[in-house]
Amino acid sequence: MPDLERLLSANAQVLKPSLIRKLTGLVNQSDVISFAAGSPNAETYPVEQLTEIYQDLVASLGGKLFQYSVTRGDPALIEAVRGRASFATTPEQTMLASGSQQALDLIARVLLDPGDAVFVEAPSFPGAIGAFQNYRAKVLGVRTDDVGMDLDHLRSRIVEARESGAPLKFVYVIPNFQNPSGRVWSTERRRGLLELCRQEGLLIVEDDAYGEVFFSGVDPETLRSIRSLDDGSTVLYMSTFSKTLAGGLRVAWLHGPEPVMRALGLAKETADLCTSTLSQKLILEFLRRGYMPEQLERVRSFYEAKAGLLQSSLEKHLGGVAEWTPPRGGLFAWLRLGEGLDSLKIFERSIEEDRVAFIPGQPFFADGEGANCLRLSFSNVADHNIESGLERLGRRIRAAS
Amino acid sequence: MPDLERLLSANAQVLKPSLIRKLTGLVNQSDVISFAAGSPNAETYPVEQLTEIYQDLVASLGGKLFQYSVTRGDPALIEAVRGRASFATTPEQTMLASGSQQALDLIARVLLDPGDAVFVEAPSFPGAIGAFQNYRAKVLGVRTDDVGMDLDHLRSRIVEARESGAPLKFVYVIPNFQNPSGRVWSTERRRGLLELCRQEGLLIVEDDAYGEVFFSGVDPETLRSIRSLDDGSTVLYMSTFSKTLAGGLRVAWLHGPEPVMRALGLAKETADLCTSTLSQKLILEFLRRGYMPEQLERVRSFYEAKAGLLQSSLEKHLGGVAEWTPPRGGLFAWLRLGEGLDSLKIFERSIEEDRVAFIPGQPFFADGEGANCLRLSFSNVADHNIESGLERLGRRIRAAS
Repeated sequence: MPDLERLLSANAQVLKPSLIRKLTGLVNQSDVISFAAGSPNAETYPVEQLTEIYQDLVASLGGKLFQYSVTRGDPALIEAVRGRASFATTPEQTMLASGSQQALDLIARVLLDPGDAVFVEAPSFPGAIGAFQNYRAKVLGVRTDDVGMDLDHLRSRIVEARESGAPLKFVYVIPNFQNPSGRVWSTERRRGLLELCRQEGLLIVEDDAYGEVFFSGVDPETLRSIRSLDDGSTVLYMSTFSKTLAGGLRVAWLHGPEPVMRALGLAKETADLCTSTLSQKLILEFLRRGYMPEQLERVRSFYEAKAGLLQSSLEKHLGGVAEWTPPRGGLFAWLRLGEGLDSLKIFERSIEEDRVAFIPGQPFFADGEGANCLRLSFSNVADHNIESGLERLGRRIRAAS
Repeated sequence: MPDLERLLSANAQVLKPSLIRKLTGLVNQSDVISFAAGSPNAETYPVEQLTEIYQDLVASLGGKLFQYSVTRGDPALIEAVRGRASFATTPEQTMLASGSQQALDLIARVLLDPGDAVFVEAPSFPGAIGAFQNYRAKVLGVRTDDVGMDLDHLRSRIVEARESGAPLKFVYVIPNFQNPSGRVWSTERRRGLLELCRQEGLLIVEDDAYGEVFFSGVDPETLRSIRSLDDGSTVLYMSTFSKTLAGGLRVAWLHGPEPVMRALGLAKETADLCTSTLSQKLILEFLRRGYMPEQLERVRSFYEAKAGLLQSSLEKHLGGVAEWTPPRGGLFAWLRLGEGLDSLKIFERSIEEDRVAFIPGQPFFADGEGANCLRLSFSNVADHNIESGLERLGRRIRAAS
């Protein structure tokens, strides 16, 4: 008989279920008010238009709508994605992926050897931290404030990592409406990071999943990508249709320096051969018909309304026991509770006794910090539940304080 | 500036474009009669039924049809897949993947460290050889005959690999209508491989992508999977909806021992989060409505007709200059030419002068053999082109002999 434990690879040995996945069963019960689910709200998905498009595509393409397609992505969709970018790229500098998570996995695969160092914001997106750790990289958290990464701390972590002998690879950042913090980097911080990474010879992986989901009063100029400040040599930019169009279609895109893109394309060949053709064609036609601007308006105002309710309820019920940055885009708010509080313990009682769910802070940190933080997602909470959920949460935190 | 070559991982350094991909541009020209494309024929995809289903799903699910879903696959589709298996499994022993290529990649990831040995048929599927080599495994080819792998040769390759110090992991086989050879293993050979692998403590990765695509006269009992002879400890079984339903939907499935499945599920979390929800729901409903039996009939008779034309044209135009096994299922026939002939050279003249394409033998071998072999795919050649294409090919080979 095969000894299965012996047969597993070193990469398999480090795989562990994310805390978020473990909590999923608990938070998805129907009587729970859940600020946990980080997915976009399915009500924002443009079902009617996708259906009109589906019918037209079937009529024109027949079975070809369901046929294999090119590994790097439908060339016409690549053109459309390039056309939407706020910076110039070549087709060779662009490819599609089967969702941002695949993009992160492919990036890890072509850039990371075991023991390599990568730097992430503290807090950062657990799907990225996990993707990098699964290739046995050292993921090093860098302190953040309200306008981005603390570049002095990044400098000292770089020195530290270099002294430890680890090869340094890249800095992973989400400058716009970050998951989980909801924060936006200042332009100065963006420039500073770019300069620092050029000096140090590090790549920047810029994940712009939420940049199009901004609320009124935000000047889109302040959201301009680090990539648009770059000559294309230092930034690997990625974004997705998941937040603005539909998460379940699984289509994201990447723009980066050619040698990296070449490796990513080859890695995708054996990773999944191609992304769903149906998904790509639906999205391409959605863009071609000019539906995106209206869809973006719809998405923005949908989340802005929820964020407004969240903010006023937070002020009313969590003032004094938590700190947060009022969301100006994206799907998330991040609460910092008093030092010494344990959000996982609060979670356990909150879900059991109050039937209110959120994500405790720890999975968002590479180094096991964040015990006194938590993430609230407002995307999937019914309007009438936002205040009552936060009222209970406020009481629960007050009781723990 | 980042020094991009230095930043690439050891895994990235070994990535190379497959010969098949490199040939794609040449063989897809409209005036070429192409026996090269290995994809199913899009005419077999059940467009009408998928469209009926799409409309009903949109009406009942709305935006949820486009929402994120569970990493291991829609639980109802997992149940349906288990129900179709010819052996008993638990839900924990089953998961879905975003196509067979992803299944192969995840298998490589959780089972292979650099330098590990895996055994494959010679010839075998290049997408599998590439997936394993991309994790820097040693992929060792084992001789085959008309009824499967030469088990004596496997035994000697095992001894050889063990003496070299390489950890031995698994044997990858496609027992039914193999890509590229079209051959079917005898039951005796299946039992023999299972016994051998149990003794040696190796897993079997059984890829059954073509098992449902058999032609009349074939007793399905003779196609029973190695997994159905196993108690579930030794075989990791995989198959796909790509050949019978639609390749572009990207849905495959795996049944295997729990510790391996657990690792595969965790690896999929950071590999792509989830498979296209739309694809999964379309397929689930296709199965629920009982459309699969009729669809299988349609697919089988479609390819059987093409295989019949191929076989009679082969007899007429390639008798004496090539050997092959008449296809009894699947999409492929495999030609062995006289020793010393170089199918890549023949390919070059064939495409240029005759406008006929096929895939030369070399990419199907892990060890660089196969120069005098070639693969013919009959799935996408128009009926009226089969004979004229093979007539030209016969002439070309005769000229080279």
